[in-house]
Amino acid sequence: MNKFEEKTTSSKQIFEGKVVKLQVDEVTLPDGNTSKREIIKHPGAVAVIAITPEEKIVFVEQYRKPLEKSLVEIPAGKLEIGEKPELSAKRELEEETGYTTDELELVTSFYTSPGFADEIIYLYFTNTLYPLAEEKALDDDEFVELMELSLEEAEELVKENRIHDAKTAYAILYLKLRGMK
Amino acid sequence: MNKFEEKTTSSKQIFEGKVVKLQVDEVTLPDGNTSKREIIKHPGAVAVIAITPEEKIVFVEQYRKPLEKSLVEIPAGKLEIGEKPELSAKRELEEETGYTTDELELVTSFYTSPGFADEIIYLYFTNTLYPLAEEKALDDDEFVELMELSLEEAEELVKENRIHDAKTAYAILYLKLRGMK
Repeated sequence: MNKFEEKTTSSKQIFEGKVVKLQVDEVTLPDGNTSKREIIKHPGAVAVIAITPEEKIVFVEQYRKPLEKSLVEIPAGKLEIGEKPELSAKRELEEETGYTTDELELVTSFYTSPGFADEIIYLYFTNTLYPLAEEKALDDDEFVELMELSLEEAEELVKENRIHDAKTAYAILYLKLRGMK
Repeated sequence: MNKFEEKTTSSKQIFEGKVVKLQVDEVTLPDGNTSKREIIKHPGAVAVIAITPEEKIVFVEQYRKPLEKSLVEIPAGKLEIGEKPELSAKRELEEETGYTTDELELVTSFYTSPGFADEIIYLYFTNTLYPLAEEKALDDDEFVELMELSLEEAEELVKENRIHDAKTAYAILYLKLRGMK
């Protein structure tokens, strides 16, 4: 579906970083006028709704520099180039939580900020977790703390704004709809 | 909560656009090492879950240049500088749908991409909609088409990836949990 398609007349890359690229596109609008679009290119991401044998939800707390505070989120991470989302989800789960699984169910996917970024998140579910025999290394610049919470405890953290991101908010509604107590 | 806080040692603005700014911060990590963080600054946004008297959900279809395709989303828009989120939500509802309301309930708020952006969305609900006597103008570069769908119809669009963004996906789960049919 390309309703109201905007034709690109020029595209200029402003910045290429290790996480995002920024480009500004000049476009022709449906009414023939022109405008500029600021676009963030992102490799995409995965996230995992992971339930322990004790029926707790697995979270990680980490510092989020753009917000200048830490958030409690479901395990997640960026897609590596060429990596299949399901493998990426398993890798991030292992690195961030020390758990692994052989069963990841794709719940859904969504764009996080379609107005200015192309980031897509693939969201998985598993309730068959096994502890890894050996810890896997996080990225050099990554520091996370594992938390295992009941749904009720997680909803308390939503009220306190310690859980405060879209994918984790979605995960909590998803678990409520699945009938988790 | 500032667990694993990263201290900023320098911050460089790379780009300032009409929607986003991009800066690169040099930080000291919890282990004393240094790293760089690419940060998108965004004014924040509002979105409205709006239910018509006929029990339909109000959506708008629009072209999303970062994705090079159109999506069906709940009405939403950027916060203007200094504007209260509730007023912004009412304004966007009026501009994009031709409906207005005097009752907006704050459902929740969430950051969309806390790893690289500070965008927050304030999400409202209303089921008391009135048609505006006179149409309000959209922004010059904004083209949207109104759609009013049942929950079942909306879920079909999720399957077709025409509804495919975080806030709208959240809205659909929220309405299911409220018991909407």
